[in-house]
Amino acid sequence: MNSAEHVHHASPHSSGSETSDERFERGLALLRTVGGQEHPAVLDSLADIAPDLGHMTVAFGYGDVLSRPGLTLRERQIATVGALAAMGNAAPQLRFHIDGALNVGVSPAEVVEILIHTAVYAGFPAALNGIGAAREVFERRPDVTATPVDSEPLPGDRYERGLAKLAEVDGHAGDQVVASMRDIAPDLTRYIVEFAFGDVYSRPGLDLKSRELASVAMCTALGTAAPQLRVHINGLLNVGGSREEVVEVITQMAGYAGFPAALNGIAAAREVFEERGDEGRRV
Amino acid sequence: MNSAEHVHHASPHSSGSETSDERFERGLALLRTVGGQEHPAVLDSLADIAPDLGHMTVAFGYGDVLSRPGLTLRERQIATVGALAAMGNAAPQLRFHIDGALNVGVSPAEVVEILIHTAVYAGFPAALNGIGAAREVFERRPDVTATPVDSEPLPGDRYERGLAKLAEVDGHAGDQVVASMRDIAPDLTRYIVEFAFGDVYSRPGLDLKSRELASVAMCTALGTAAPQLRVHINGLLNVGGSREEVVEVITQMAGYAGFPAALNGIAAAREVFEERGDEGRRV
Amino acid sequence: MNSAEHVHHASPHSSGSETSDERFERGLALLRTVGGQEHPAVLDSLADIAPDLGHMTVAFGYGDVLSRPGLTLRERQIATVGALAAMGNAAPQLRFHIDGALNVGVSPAEVVEILIHTAVYAGFPAALNGIGAAREVFERRPDVTATPVDSEPLPGDRYERGLAKLAEVDGHAGDQVVASMRDIAPDLTRYIVEFAFGDVYSRPGLDLKSRELASVAMCTALGTAAPQLRVHINGLLNVGGSREEVVEVITQMAGYAGFPAALNGIAAAREVFEERGDEGRRV
Repeated sequence: MNSAEHVHHASPHSSGSETSDERFERGLALLRTVGGQEHPAVLDSLADIAPDLGHMTVAFGYGDVLSRPGLTLRERQIATVGALAAMGNAAPQLRFHIDGALNVGVSPAEVVEILIHTAVYAGFPAALNGIGAAREVFERRPDVTATPVDSEPLPGDRYERGLAKLAEVDGHAGDQVVASMRDIAPDLTRYIVEFAFGDVYSRPGLDLKSRELASVAMCTALGTAAPQLRVHINGLLNVGGSREEVVEVITQMAGYAGFPAALNGIAAAREVFEERGDEGRRV
Repeated sequence: MNSAEHVHHASPHSSGSETSDERFERGLALLRTVGGQEHPAVLDSLADIAPDLGHMTVAFGYGDVLSRPGLTLRERQIATVGALAAMGNAAPQLRFHIDGALNVGVSPAEVVEILIHTAVYAGFPAALNGIGAAREVFERRPDVTATPVDSEPLPGDRYERGLAKLAEVDGHAGDQVVASMRDIAPDLTRYIVEFAFGDVYSRPGLDLKSRELASVAMCTALGTAAPQLRVHINGLLNVGGSREEVVEVITQMAGYAGFPAALNGIAAAREVFEERGDEGRRV
Repeated sequence: MNSAEHVHHASPHSSGSETSDERFERGLALLRTVGGQEHPAVLDSLADIAPDLGHMTVAFGYGDVLSRPGLTLRERQIATVGALAAMGNAAPQLRFHIDGALNVGVSPAEVVEILIHTAVYAGFPAALNGIGAAREVFERRPDVTATPVDSEPLPGDRYERGLAKLAEVDGHAGDQVVASMRDIAPDLTRYIVEFAFGDVYSRPGLDLKSRELASVAMCTALGTAAPQLRVHINGLLNVGGSREEVVEVITQMAGYAGFPAALNGIAAAREVFEERGDEGRRV
């Protein structure tokens, strides 16, 4: 953890004057921290036919993006695990980043929480396959005892609990979501309140800011959830996130879901920032 | 089948006063019917690290959503198989729900038809990999003889046949689709008429309402087909579906593709319902 | 190659008067060329339960779409490999079409370039898994020696090089992209210039028109990149592509990502064509 934090804060906003070697070396140090390997497998595995892609992964993905200040490595891995699980089409990378999350201070129980959280944004298949990936990673690590993450029953009524949590995340926008859906799909609205907010968001195993970082990462990476992305950019700001953090997590998705996903996420952030004006402004 | 129907119609629109145990028990009974297993594997497989996710899958996915009236279990499985095949990123769940479809009265030939239908909305790779999943399921079941689904050549001209089918599904909107595309991509328009409607939709192995249920499910789950989702919400209403059924199939997608997909689907349904006014209103 | 070119240019814009047998025979000849197999596996593998889907794959996918004039087979395989790698959910088809690309004149080094290009539009996981698929294909072919595609360091400053390449692709629209992003995410803008255009687009191993064909194919198939699709339709026109080629590559995606993807792509093309008026018009 100490070395991770050190690498993390050493990251500059590099300019064109920096050499590729410097970017690569900074990235390699960070990749060693995240991957827990002295010789990162991604470089070896690409050496035969695409060594340049390995270089880019390290220099751009780790040296440029993951080295940035603005989010801790722990927060970045929470976002990445959530996004890859939601996308559901990159199993090897999901396993790597679950392992990486454990290496930078995310607990096994928190990994499980992130994957349960995925059910809300990408459905149960994504969550179930994410848990399958986590199991594989946990079994390979002698330091992880697979203790069931079996929370106590949450207190009170699901709907009331969900409504309170929705208000905490969305402010008055939550009421609008509920109100706007009552006309033709009242039960879907009820499920959002009861299941998404009453069951999942109310679970104690992951703090609310981490949940909203994961939500913004998932909605950005999926690219099919524009209205929900705006809701949760607001949500992240409402639960203590800064505008800088919103921009950081969306920027990070360029490496995992491509530049179009990140660009469209930034466009959504711009809309939200403009709507909010100076409210909650910290950047 | 009898027990499935029984469970199905027993489903309440639950309120917050219902306990989680009641939801779980109702869901478990339904999951046993769909999965054909006394001890559902999804619970066992999650017991080690994420038993709560297993509980949610049963209580929310089966106890809340799949237990709802408004669609038969057969219709729900047709929608789920179509959606998972179209998404193409959840192979274990696709196999489970193909098996489940067979358990609630979908024939093997109909499963094959749904998967062929997928080619229209998600391309041939999705259809081909869906057939691969079906083969695995069929081979494991002693009650399924893998008879080739090899229809007789359809009568008449492909284009004329497709145009007639398009009119049956889309009404005058079909003409507009064809007309609007003639300017820069006339051949793509022709393929829609000839291939999508003349070859696929005209096949006798699956009734038109089931095809439109699958189309709405696929377009909702993909999240990238907003204009086509509106066309096929209209299509489902045109071929005998009700507004309640439209809302049901979209709501069901919350569990398989996440809440954003379902919410955006409902927004599309609202637009269509408003445009149609009282036409074909049954809900 | 000669037979491929022959088949290619023999393709008619078929009308309803053509029989399914004629479409199938034309498709089969083309599939033999692309797949390099006298007895295409796709037919054998579907014979047990879904022979009609095999027939459609050949008659529609190869007989109707891939047989069309307007793009060479080489260009079509570049587009398909890019799209399937970007989608990330069709590994067997990605391997088949990488093999097919090699069969119609794409070099192994160019395959690697297309897959590296994927990182820009769909993220590093898509690129890395694409390289994994290429490795499997390369290893099975005695005619491919897996020479690392390890380019010399590109000359000059990454940012300056990227800006020049962006201007080449996007014209003045590139400046607008850069300018519009400076407000809240200046670093993401910098990454697009430095990484996407300075590192990837500037690589010498794949010509710029092929890159833009792949970009249009990827953005169409993903269905989540509407603004970027418009940028790269313009880009393809700017680097020597014709309007016919734009329509062709988008139409081709109907078979790989479904009709909604193709239809929405054509709608984007219509917007771009209208904006450009007669500028660069060749169709």
